[in-house]
Amino acid sequence: MTGRDGGADLSPIGNSPVVVLVRPQLAENIGAVARAMANGGLFHLRLVAPRDGWPQERAWRSASGADRILDAATVHPDVDDAVSDLHRVFATCPRPRHIVKPILTARGGAAEIREISRRGLGVGLLFGPERAGLDNDDMARTDALIRYPLNPDFSSLNLAQAVMIMAYEWWLSAAGENGEEEIPARVLMTNETQVATKGELGNFMTHLVRELDACGFLRNMPKRPGMVRNLWHFFERGEVTQQELRTLHGVVTELALGRRLRGRDEAS
Amino acid sequence: MTGRDGGADLSPIGNSPVVVLVRPQLAENIGAVARAMANGGLFHLRLVAPRDGWPQERAWRSASGADRILDAATVHPDVDDAVSDLHRVFATCPRPRHIVKPILTARGGAAEIREISRRGLGVGLLFGPERAGLDNDDMARTDALIRYPLNPDFSSLNLAQAVMIMAYEWWLSAAGENGEEEIPARVLMTNETQVATKGELGNFMTHLVRELDACGFLRNMPKRPGMVRNLWHFFERGEVTQQELRTLHGVVTELALGRRLRGRDEAS
Repeated sequence: MTGRDGGADLSPIGNSPVVVLVRPQLAENIGAVARAMANGGLFHLRLVAPRDGWPQERAWRSASGADRILDAATVHPDVDDAVSDLHRVFATCPRPRHIVKPILTARGGAAEIREISRRGLGVGLLFGPERAGLDNDDMARTDALIRYPLNPDFSSLNLAQAVMIMAYEWWLSAAGENGEEEIPARVLMTNETQVATKGELGNFMTHLVRELDACGFLRNMPKRPGMVRNLWHFFERGEVTQQELRTLHGVVTELALGRRLRGRDEAS
Repeated sequence: MTGRDGGADLSPIGNSPVVVLVRPQLAENIGAVARAMANGGLFHLRLVAPRDGWPQERAWRSASGADRILDAATVHPDVDDAVSDLHRVFATCPRPRHIVKPILTARGGAAEIREISRRGLGVGLLFGPERAGLDNDDMARTDALIRYPLNPDFSSLNLAQAVMIMAYEWWLSAAGENGEEEIPARVLMTNETQVATKGELGNFMTHLVRELDACGFLRNMPKRPGMVRNLWHFFERGEVTQQELRTLHGVVTELALGRRLRGRDEAS
């Protein structure tokens, strides 16, 4: 899936936002950010004054093949320079104080950014440095802040995790785009086989009940209809497939055969 | 927010799912998983046959204070042992083949798990080892699989990132619970000040237009109504606050005063 030698062939899809890491500290984190970006279909990375300089080999080592994003990353002296060609800038920020700014959830932010990107405008997503976060001047350059709904009692979020959540929401906001099918909340994956028809299930139930009658399991006639119905309820519940029905037919046949042979042995 | 000495005081809220790491390899990843769990309000961790044994000090070092989750983690020889007291088990898995299983999105899965947890049943969330993922026997023990909607061209997901996405969706699925207010998709955060009333904005506009009339900026009478209207449009757009209005009144007053003083100097 991902080429380790030379990196994955990651191509930008349409107009996607630019991830701007402001004064990032650890090269490993920059690499992990590139990996998370690739997971969610973000491809443009800009670095503002990375603490240890750039490039750093350790970033490539922790990117798991998202090399192309790191190869194309640009370095900027400050936030103004990094966002000067962009039209709208959003920043993630846990709990800013003393400022007046629209606050979006990650989901709400992704939806707005998707709409703005569709109009062909350039969007920047600012992430502050580990521990310190964005400073007040950085935040004054943004249109809006994005605050993740997460546990307020433990809000220490790793930089790559913060990027991962926005990348995930960015991908989700495309639902039905990117040539991806929209995935329903729950679906039975059947791979090579098919869900059985009611007729196929009925054939199996006839087979099962015939053998249960033969072995005497259903000999209590007043209780028989309820017991048969309970078996129906169970086998209906799991959306049985044609392949599974073949296996279940075999199970019933072989169990019954074993009983018959044993009966014959015991009788002899 | 998070105590580095001794770790954060993380208390389980209600009945929350158990995260089961199956044959995890790197202790750093186990620590990063605990941190992501704490971010999303997951508190119960079980380890199935961790490769390097347990406990591992490096896990605590990468947990950023989520110590309590690691302290309480239990170790199990196999998946059967780890899930024996649970009622429902879900596994995250990128693209399983040759099996028949319900597939959920992360969001759909979180909603189902939330409902099951509300009924008081025990839920397990299985995550496979780095690189290899869950094997076929592990998956046969699960009720359903969870597949994240992410870039199919780059699906190599870090273990802690995989846990982070489920933890995030778990927290979101509580919307309105946990004593947290439900966060709207977009809201203006004003902190100490308030959005100005229309009357307060009107007072400022009167002030501004009076000074613009005085300095001659609006002297083109046919264009004057349109220019005034455009200024109104601009100042209405940003949901101006009372504090900002005070600043803007000052800006207009001082600019006008500067012009008057300069006019006087030039005249003298």
